[in-house]
Amino acid sequence: MTNPAQNGHPSKSEEGARSPADEERAKMPAPSAPSRPYADLDTPSVIVDLALLERNVAEMAGLAREAGVALRPHVKTHKTPRIAAMQLDAGAAGLTCAKVGEAEALAGAGFTDLFVCYPIVTRTKARRLSALAARPGLSLSTIVDSPAGVAALSAAFADAPEPLETLVKVDTGLGRVGVAPGAAAVDLARTVAAAPGLRFGGVCAHEGFAYGLPDPEERAAAARAGAATLAATAEELAAAGLPAARVSVGATPGASALAATPGVTEVRPGNYVFYDAMQAGLGVVPLERCALRVLVTVVSHAARDRAIVDAGSKTLTSDQGAHGLASAGGFGAVVGREDVRIERLSEEHGWLRLDPAGSDVGIGETLEVVPVHACPVANLAHELVIVR
Amino acid sequence: MTNPAQNGHPSKSEEGARSPADEERAKMPAPSAPSRPYADLDTPSVIVDLALLERNVAEMAGLAREAGVALRPHVKTHKTPRIAAMQLDAGAAGLTCAKVGEAEALAGAGFTDLFVCYPIVTRTKARRLSALAARPGLSLSTIVDSPAGVAALSAAFADAPEPLETLVKVDTGLGRVGVAPGAAAVDLARTVAAAPGLRFGGVCAHEGFAYGLPDPEERAAAARAGAATLAATAEELAAAGLPAARVSVGATPGASALAATPGVTEVRPGNYVFYDAMQAGLGVVPLERCALRVLVTVVSHAARDRAIVDAGSKTLTSDQGAHGLASAGGFGAVVGREDVRIERLSEEHGWLRLDPAGSDVGIGETLEVVPVHACPVANLAHELVIVR
Repeated sequence: MTNPAQNGHPSKSEEGARSPADEERAKMPAPSAPSRPYADLDTPSVIVDLALLERNVAEMAGLAREAGVALRPHVKTHKTPRIAAMQLDAGAAGLTCAKVGEAEALAGAGFTDLFVCYPIVTRTKARRLSALAARPGLSLSTIVDSPAGVAALSAAFADAPEPLETLVKVDTGLGRVGVAPGAAAVDLARTVAAAPGLRFGGVCAHEGFAYGLPDPEERAAAARAGAATLAATAEELAAAGLPAARVSVGATPGASALAATPGVTEVRPGNYVFYDAMQAGLGVVPLERCALRVLVTVVSHAARDRAIVDAGSKTLTSDQGAHGLASAGGFGAVVGREDVRIERLSEEHGWLRLDPAGSDVGIGETLEVVPVHACPVANLAHELVIVR
Repeated sequence: MTNPAQNGHPSKSEEGARSPADEERAKMPAPSAPSRPYADLDTPSVIVDLALLERNVAEMAGLAREAGVALRPHVKTHKTPRIAAMQLDAGAAGLTCAKVGEAEALAGAGFTDLFVCYPIVTRTKARRLSALAARPGLSLSTIVDSPAGVAALSAAFADAPEPLETLVKVDTGLGRVGVAPGAAAVDLARTVAAAPGLRFGGVCAHEGFAYGLPDPEERAAAARAGAATLAATAEELAAAGLPAARVSVGATPGASALAATPGVTEVRPGNYVFYDAMQAGLGVVPLERCALRVLVTVVSHAARDRAIVDAGSKTLTSDQGAHGLASAGGFGAVVGREDVRIERLSEEHGWLRLDPAGSDVGIGETLEVVPVHACPVANLAHELVIVR
């Protein structure tokens, strides 16, 4: 995969001025210059510690390399071309997107190997995909979990010069998107292989259930079981004459167990670039490893046990975990102030509960908050400020 | 207050290309042309029913007019200059903002009477306020709830040509921002009156506790009690030689009780322009009155009792109510499909729980969702699509 950051000349978007790609790109926060003075930042600001980011990126790349699987990180966590470039520099084989809009923005920024890991079922979105696939040098793939999805993609790609690489999404336990493992997956793969304009590319699953398992051993065992289920389906496919070139799994919790499962060919973790209080709550990493923090200011302190900071649900989001699970207490962890709890959020207010026997905060004081869930926080931010 | 929509020549922002005002403005969704075909919309799209919006705007304006109080609606709900203009056309006296950035964006769009109802305590933000106040013809006001806030504002406005109209924020029961009613408020008002660059402008409270009271009579009584507490503090201030020109209350639930309380001079509801499933859950309005909806597509239906739509927490948000309260079941109401529940959200997935004995949905089908909390949904949207 070409890394546009290496030659400094990312190709420009070919879309019109108000294309969905432009809209998506406008949303992608652009990292500020590292030289921007940390203390002069207005609040709330979303900051990213560069040393931690680099370490997180390098470690996951090393994990995939040692396991001998491809790393195709999910960009929905950061939506930032410069961070995507860091992931490719570290050895990632390509990028995973949650939306056609994310893929359009990345293609516009010059990235050339994109996996839209979301079921496309409408004519509008399938046509956006085929317009994207028509870009010179772009390698595009996606998923299906229904004959309706196969039909929508086939209609848009039947006349394309190259067939669309299409993976069958399998539900290995999350209970969200995907057909059942085994026979149902083989049936759908056969439908893909027979559809004009499509090429069967393999199988794919997301082990999001790992977010509900706080015990590390239980989590690793569940991740392994999920990946093994997908690998077994790949064997059934091979026996049916439909070899799965890609056996793709992904989630940050349990990533090492996933990557080490025999038969797996690629992993798609996303959150690991930043980590967050949810991952710390699960014991995936200590809180100190979380690269994304929100700089906030204490704006009110009207009672001894209560203070208010200038970040609420429009900055920290009301997420209490992934997939609707509650994996962390409160709405963020105040760095170095374990006795201070973020108890409630209004839209622009974070309610701190202070222990009257513990440390106090002062009006005007700046605090660093590790959010519960970094992905929607980065999505809301106009910019990510890189700090060293 | 000048309504820039009336002459069609809103003044331009005087800030530089990357000012906070520009950033905020970039975030404000611009309504699309009403002629945009509804059925051709890609999903997820945030749509606003114009007839309902107009009715909601007119009814609240009528309520304030009949009560003889000023209406200063909170723009944090829509962040959209065209909707702010509708509110002024209907009789609003000015606009309330939750952030300096919102006020900067509205000033840039030509609005001239802005109330920043948030405690400003840092030099950076106080200077942004004084830069804003220096615009010709702009009437600006704000709040304080601490001597530290008074000091920060006074330092920024001591040399300004006009003093800053500063209200004392009073906590009448929400337990968030604000000094205690009575003596504490009088003390802080005295500090304001003595501070160079500031002019004491009155008292202000937010009856957000109304969101925790599902019984309409109990809610109205609590709203009345909160407003009466604020009015009593205003009387104490008058007796102390510090007359409160503005006695400002605000919340959509309980708005009529608030406006009718003797001594109140202005109301600041925000959510009413759209309403949402939370307000419907509280019985403030029926669900049919909610003007903002999210158009979603069913993208997966892998089990009889489960389907997935293409709007998750990055579209609907994980809010289950205001101020961290849970006032609505689930994560949104599917219009006309009471037997379908939005049970969980991933970032780009909404999990529908279907009643096997109830109605089914089909892959590719479009549904309308009234979100639990409209304000953060509008905040996340790139655009609001006006439909008739």
